[in-house]
Amino acid sequence: MSECDVKFEPDNVHVQIPKGTTLLDAAKAGAVSLLAPCGGQGICGRCRCQIIEGETGRTEVQREKLSDEDLAKGWRLGCIATVESDLVVHLPADVRGTVAAILEDSSLDDIELGPGAEIRKHYLELAEPSLEDQRDDLSRVLDALAAEDVQLDTVDFPAVLPGLSEALRADEFRVTAVHREGVLMGVEPGNTVNECYGVAVDLGTTTVVAYLAHLPTSTQLAVTSEVNPQVAYGDDVVSRITHINESGRGVRTLSEAARECVRELVARLAKMAGIDPRHVYGVRLVGNSTMSHIFVGADPRNIPQAPYIPGVHRSVIAPARELGMSDVARGARFCTLPNIAGWVGSDTVGVILSTGMHRLEGARVAIDIGTNGEIVVGDENRLVACSTAAGPAFEGAQIKHGMRGASGAIDHVFLENDDLRITTIGDQASRGICGTGLIDAVACLLDAGLILETGRMLPEAEAGHLPDALQARIVTLDDAPAAILATAEESALDGPVVLTQRDVRQLQLAKGAIATGVRIAMNECGVEVADVQEILLAGAFGSYVNPGRAADIGLFPRELVDRARAVGNAAGAGAYLALVSADHGAQASLIGDRAEYLELAGRLDFDMVFADEMLFPGSE
Amino acid sequence: MSECDVKFEPDNVHVQIPKGTTLLDAAKAGAVSLLAPCGGQGICGRCRCQIIEGETGRTEVQREKLSDEDLAKGWRLGCIATVESDLVVHLPADVRGTVAAILEDSSLDDIELGPGAEIRKHYLELAEPSLEDQRDDLSRVLDALAAEDVQLDTVDFPAVLPGLSEALRADEFRVTAVHREGVLMGVEPGNTVNECYGVAVDLGTTTVVAYLAHLPTSTQLAVTSEVNPQVAYGDDVVSRITHINESGRGVRTLSEAARECVRELVARLAKMAGIDPRHVYGVRLVGNSTMSHIFVGADPRNIPQAPYIPGVHRSVIAPARELGMSDVARGARFCTLPNIAGWVGSDTVGVILSTGMHRLEGARVAIDIGTNGEIVVGDENRLVACSTAAGPAFEGAQIKHGMRGASGAIDHVFLENDDLRITTIGDQASRGICGTGLIDAVACLLDAGLILETGRMLPEAEAGHLPDALQARIVTLDDAPAAILATAEESALDGPVVLTQRDVRQLQLAKGAIATGVRIAMNECGVEVADVQEILLAGAFGSYVNPGRAADIGLFPRELVDRARAVGNAAGAGAYLALVSADHGAQASLIGDRAEYLELAGRLDFDMVFADEMLFPGSE
Repeated sequence: MSECDVKFEPDNVHVQIPKGTTLLDAAKAGAVSLLAPCGGQGICGRCRCQIIEGETGRTEVQREKLSDEDLAKGWRLGCIATVESDLVVHLPADVRGTVAAILEDSSLDDIELGPGAEIRKHYLELAEPSLEDQRDDLSRVLDALAAEDVQLDTVDFPAVLPGLSEALRADEFRVTAVHREGVLMGVEPGNTVNECYGVAVDLGTTTVVAYLAHLPTSTQLAVTSEVNPQVAYGDDVVSRITHINESGRGVRTLSEAARECVRELVARLAKMAGIDPRHVYGVRLVGNSTMSHIFVGADPRNIPQAPYIPGVHRSVIAPARELGMSDVARGARFCTLPNIAGWVGSDTVGVILSTGMHRLEGARVAIDIGTNGEIVVGDENRLVACSTAAGPAFEGAQIKHGMRGASGAIDHVFLENDDLRITTIGDQASRGICGTGLIDAVACLLDAGLILETGRMLPEAEAGHLPDALQARIVTLDDAPAAILATAEESALDGPVVLTQRDVRQLQLAKGAIATGVRIAMNECGVEVADVQEILLAGAFGSYVNPGRAADIGLFPRELVDRARAVGNAAGAGAYLALVSADHGAQASLIGDRAEYLELAGRLDFDMVFADEMLFPGSE
Repeated sequence: MSECDVKFEPDNVHVQIPKGTTLLDAAKAGAVSLLAPCGGQGICGRCRCQIIEGETGRTEVQREKLSDEDLAKGWRLGCIATVESDLVVHLPADVRGTVAAILEDSSLDDIELGPGAEIRKHYLELAEPSLEDQRDDLSRVLDALAAEDVQLDTVDFPAVLPGLSEALRADEFRVTAVHREGVLMGVEPGNTVNECYGVAVDLGTTTVVAYLAHLPTSTQLAVTSEVNPQVAYGDDVVSRITHINESGRGVRTLSEAARECVRELVARLAKMAGIDPRHVYGVRLVGNSTMSHIFVGADPRNIPQAPYIPGVHRSVIAPARELGMSDVARGARFCTLPNIAGWVGSDTVGVILSTGMHRLEGARVAIDIGTNGEIVVGDENRLVACSTAAGPAFEGAQIKHGMRGASGAIDHVFLENDDLRITTIGDQASRGICGTGLIDAVACLLDAGLILETGRMLPEAEAGHLPDALQARIVTLDDAPAAILATAEESALDGPVVLTQRDVRQLQLAKGAIATGVRIAMNECGVEVADVQEILLAGAFGSYVNPGRAADIGLFPRELVDRARAVGNAAGAGAYLALVSADHGAQASLIGDRAEYLELAGRLDFDMVFADEMLFPGSE
């Protein structure tokens, strides 16, 4: 039997496997996480993978779960589809089960969820009314709850009243009441205690991830993600704010786009898990300050300009129905985690919450790198957060041949046999270089001596002492040296893929900004390198970057390499925790109050530290 | 100069006045209340009267304030329009200033409004943000309020956030915060402390009356009214509930009709007073239980059938924006007064509140007669409320020639010179008989001996001892006697207007039901006739009925005639008080909790008392 090469993205894992194997078994063989909740029986339809390249089999039997459109886009069920050629398979966040992985991997193993979610249900058997007991329907419910020691002070009348009287009479005055924190949110006919769900949302600038939780058991039922439709109005926070300024509609266009996206994700999660979305009672959201401002309808326009003032810092609580979530329970509550400052949002609070660094002994450093790098240093006593404008270099932008981590991107670079060896995503002809590839390339060239500690690349004339193969890679572009990473033959571009002197400077600026933030925050906190228990690398970049290479370019001190740990989507995990655990929800509020924001723009020492951190580490 | 006869409805006041006099002066001559807030200068446009019959002058100069449509419907400005012929003029509730009259007339003269409305405004001069003070906009406002000892725990985020950041920056960080009971409702640029309004609504089955109040001074600025558009779905509560049952849309059609009506009334009030409706922050509503259920979207369908269970008894509080009030402040709060039971609604709580009977020494009896008669007996210690199905006789329905109190209705009947003399509304040829005319007619015929204590009308054969003129009025209809009130010549109908034996029975049932309720409630309360300080007659019927005649037919004991007092729209006055006075709002909630509902349907003594009260009082 012939073997095929199956590559799983975005983890970039290759597996050699006999033709005819299912994708699920291929993933298992490669130790790639591919969730198949029904155990691979083809029932739940949730192990959806996207075939980027190659042929799979048994497509006909998947038609029940997949639409023609899905099939045309390459979606297949991992437990049914078989490997019929070499494949490149993309596993979306849902099937990789990001949060579950985080909760399993991290110190949150022994997480105490306390008494559970703040949203609760109570089944009640009410006394039937009579001329001797003419209590109104609502009092009948509240009295019965009080008899079970649930004292509710407030009623969400627009949610509760419309169906109340029918609910009582639909099943002979047996009802289930939904409540939270002293508020009655709904009354349903019969016993629906077990049908109680919530959704956690990580509203990223680029990607929106949503997690469905069964609240009584804190069980994660489904995960799904979508590109933030706001990308149509600009790739980054600043260009979206420009759109807000220029559109004449304020934040409305962007709010509506994000709300519609979340509404769709919630509907999809419900479908994936086979639940009624009207049993979703809570939505917890994290995002950077601008994203969460736009979502709740607050004005983010003062965030990007000094003195960087957000409209709202604390948790925003509102009826989900007022934020476009029309499919969920009418009484469902929407709640953000608090922001820390204009440039340190609730996503960072989520990172702190899910890593537990706010209640652990010993200092930890958390780094979440996107266009901005958010940094938190702290322990059970103190939390200092700051943000540095890293620029988009780590995302491949403003780099001559930079690109996102898509098919054909150089994702790894090795120094082997006195020359560079590259790998690309999907093993395609090279189309450019993504963030991890950029770091690898610079780290290798630093190691080889082609790039100096100052970031200067050696021109051909000064590189005579380097191995021939490396010398051959040096070219001159715009009067400055550049290094060929992929030759014209290896490249899908018109010419070679190169790393320019200017690219190196961009990376220096980016890594310098992060490293400066880390150092100043550590100083502010009185934390020495030796004190640091862990470096927690959050987000997609944190998951893909090789910590050794990150230390090679000086993103953080080399001594900490062994203490570095990828924590995945820690922001989303924080939203999830706050959703399923009232105790964690309360902790999130405390973090919002406790975390000190360190404004780097106001510091006299910034430039000095930055000048220092711009340098690459010297070879010891 | 020729004189014209001007008749003002609904007070039925005639004035003889020279041609060319303004309507305002004609009203003054007749001591008819016609509010002209600008002093009759033609500026405010609020003294709108409707010409039912006849010609007025100076129409052209009114075009600035009245639309073509208004003019076509007969609307004129009282201070400009001149009398050019005999006129019938209808004065809507707004220009009669009903609430003001109540507050002036009643024991509420010395009303203590306590510390004012629960809705408050605070002007704040905020510190401008800087790199040293990066507090978010919301915290900046809440901190400044806290510094003035206003501690707010909660924020209506969907109301506050959208305009917050712009509000702070529109007038150099000078803002006005609106709040109530620990909730921040809004933040506005500049100092708007004085622009703070609320609306009280009396949602009647037939008529909706709305009052605009300036909250800082508790001043009433405008009143207006409208026919409840739900009349398109039935004249009374029961036929509307039938519509709900049959429409397939539940309460939605009726909810939307009532909400749209209130929205329009609020907009009209704002226009009348020249204020911005976005400065209306509170709406207080009273109505019978069915009306208020429908308005808030609760199900009233169990109210009309035993055991008469309402969906909700307590005050319903909701954002006004969720009840179709799109013109008011985004944070405006809607709140009903509590209901007492399915058949004793928040309108009755309003009557209790505005008459003050719940905190006065000595027993009072309040009677509010519509299709149902709601009765309250009580004092500072106890309140007992009940409802009796009076039937619509007092409104002229189910009476052979019954009609509402409109033009041509017999409204008064006198016994003069051994014969009957009638007056009609608008001095028109008689078209029928309204509630007050019905009571008058029966009282006169009782007095004359043509109707006996049992309600039996004498047939011609037994009436030989009566004066000839009265004898001549007796006819036989459907084998039973009837009395001619208006002859065929005096009538606009095909034949005479008559009072039939069956009509007398209907009135007996109606007055018997009310009197039974009064007696059982008094018994329940241990109140003797001698103990009763006042009989308070609420609503339109209470305002128009002659207390002496009401006692003549036995609606209440004759001894109490001198203690009877019309209290006008006491229900609406109650809503107004709860709006402008937090103390009264709290009292309303206490009344809702305190008032005992007396279910007459469950009482063994009902039939016996009713059989007794069905009789008319004997002549002493």
